[in-house]
Amino acid sequence: MDPRPVGVFDSGVGGLTVLHECLVTMPHEDFVYLGDHARLPYGPRPLEEVRRFAREIGLFLEAQDVKLIVVACNTATSAALPQLQGELAVPVIGVIAPEARAAVQATRNRRIGLLATQGTVDSGRYAQLVRALDAGVSFHPVACPRLVPLIESDDPYAEETEEAVREYAAPLRAAEVDTVILGCTHYPLIRPIFQRVLGRGVTLVFSAEETAREVAETLARKGIENDRAREGRYRFLTTGDPVAFREMGRRFLQLPIGEVERVTVARLEEALA
Amino acid sequence: MDPRPVGVFDSGVGGLTVLHECLVTMPHEDFVYLGDHARLPYGPRPLEEVRRFAREIGLFLEAQDVKLIVVACNTATSAALPQLQGELAVPVIGVIAPEARAAVQATRNRRIGLLATQGTVDSGRYAQLVRALDAGVSFHPVACPRLVPLIESDDPYAEETEEAVREYAAPLRAAEVDTVILGCTHYPLIRPIFQRVLGRGVTLVFSAEETAREVAETLARKGIENDRAREGRYRFLTTGDPVAFREMGRRFLQLPIGEVERVTVARLEEALA
Repeated sequence: MDPRPVGVFDSGVGGLTVLHECLVTMPHEDFVYLGDHARLPYGPRPLEEVRRFAREIGLFLEAQDVKLIVVACNTATSAALPQLQGELAVPVIGVIAPEARAAVQATRNRRIGLLATQGTVDSGRYAQLVRALDAGVSFHPVACPRLVPLIESDDPYAEETEEAVREYAAPLRAAEVDTVILGCTHYPLIRPIFQRVLGRGVTLVFSAEETAREVAETLARKGIENDRAREGRYRFLTTGDPVAFREMGRRFLQLPIGEVERVTVARLEEALA
Repeated sequence: MDPRPVGVFDSGVGGLTVLHECLVTMPHEDFVYLGDHARLPYGPRPLEEVRRFAREIGLFLEAQDVKLIVVACNTATSAALPQLQGELAVPVIGVIAPEARAAVQATRNRRIGLLATQGTVDSGRYAQLVRALDAGVSFHPVACPRLVPLIESDDPYAEETEEAVREYAAPLRAAEVDTVILGCTHYPLIRPIFQRVLGRGVTLVFSAEETAREVAETLARKGIENDRAREGRYRFLTTGDPVAFREMGRRFLQLPIGEVERVTVARLEEALA
């Protein structure tokens, strides 16, 4: 048994969908979530910079005595996961490998699609991991640059969002994929739109669910779960504005947010110094 | 629901430990096991030859209308899995990826050992998959050329076996690994020797258990399980002597073997022709 919390981080609020699934799957565990709002979005930044930010946050969370770190962001996972794993003493789990495995297990016709940000598609990490598990899969990645802004807008369920999804899904329908990886932590918020546009015959794989499952299995296998009889706590840190975090975060977490603490970028930078 | 059987193959009887775990985990599924006794062992053969044999057997099993194929042999998995997956329409699962993942999940100090045949160690597949999941793992492979002959001998529990295990385990103890992958389907037969020699603090990961788990999850995710209320059947094919297969196989399967049917090498060769 291990009472230490699990650390989770993202550049913004998207990772809260991963935290949501963790809180529902492991109500007995404690979690600390760090959102690097002062420096978001990570997407357009050079890889080297994203790696440095991720290392700062990883070392900062490790110093908070977490037992495991979850990189709850597809961009940061594809940019920085191996470096983080190489540098930190605590185990680090990303959002890509669990989804790749789930998609290979789920597909019946061995045709898999990917909807994700440009950076995640460009990194080729999903393709690489899917092929490592099944070299015979036909893999179809599609970059969806318009989706994150639409999901963060005032009305994520607007017709414009459905039109964008329809446009991005078109090549996947043409390729007759039966399984689609939703490779961005924002996407669970518009799950019904994906399911309607892609049709009931298509299996959707979400990073939030698969990563929570991976975290639960890992804690159990390592024998470092917390006491299952207790109710866990969770808390939030942001490098940005705590009020804005609470406002936007509510929609992604779908659970009470409570107190949000501010941590300065300078303090993160000290972790690496 | 899908009533088709699962196909399992190996060069000999080792794969029966994988079948054993499948039969215990999925009593409602049908299985057909092919042992290529006429051409064993695969280990010392050129990679190209092992690949050809695996393709022949894969195509033969596919023609028997199986819904999934398990390569229940570490040598054949490391030599031929990607080629098989590329060529066959049915999904193919090997014994290496499930074990690599289990070991990464289980280790607490992120030091993992591997005990396996020379060919499996040389292929580097375990190291590659372990590092794809956790780039920070310290990985220690040890080739164990004497173990398979000892386990197939008249007295697998002889002192000589324990001495061999002690010798192969020495570098792993020195490296202070806390998790050891037993990367050969023969090894479950001497599990108590491994556990005594390596100590209670070390987690042992067996291909049989992890692969059965992977098969069960895959059938469930694809929605192609058989009716859970029924009791499954299983049957055996060998390219060698059915009597010898039954004799040696009993020890590995630890369940009734029943009828063993002979299939000629020529018939396998036709599958590829």
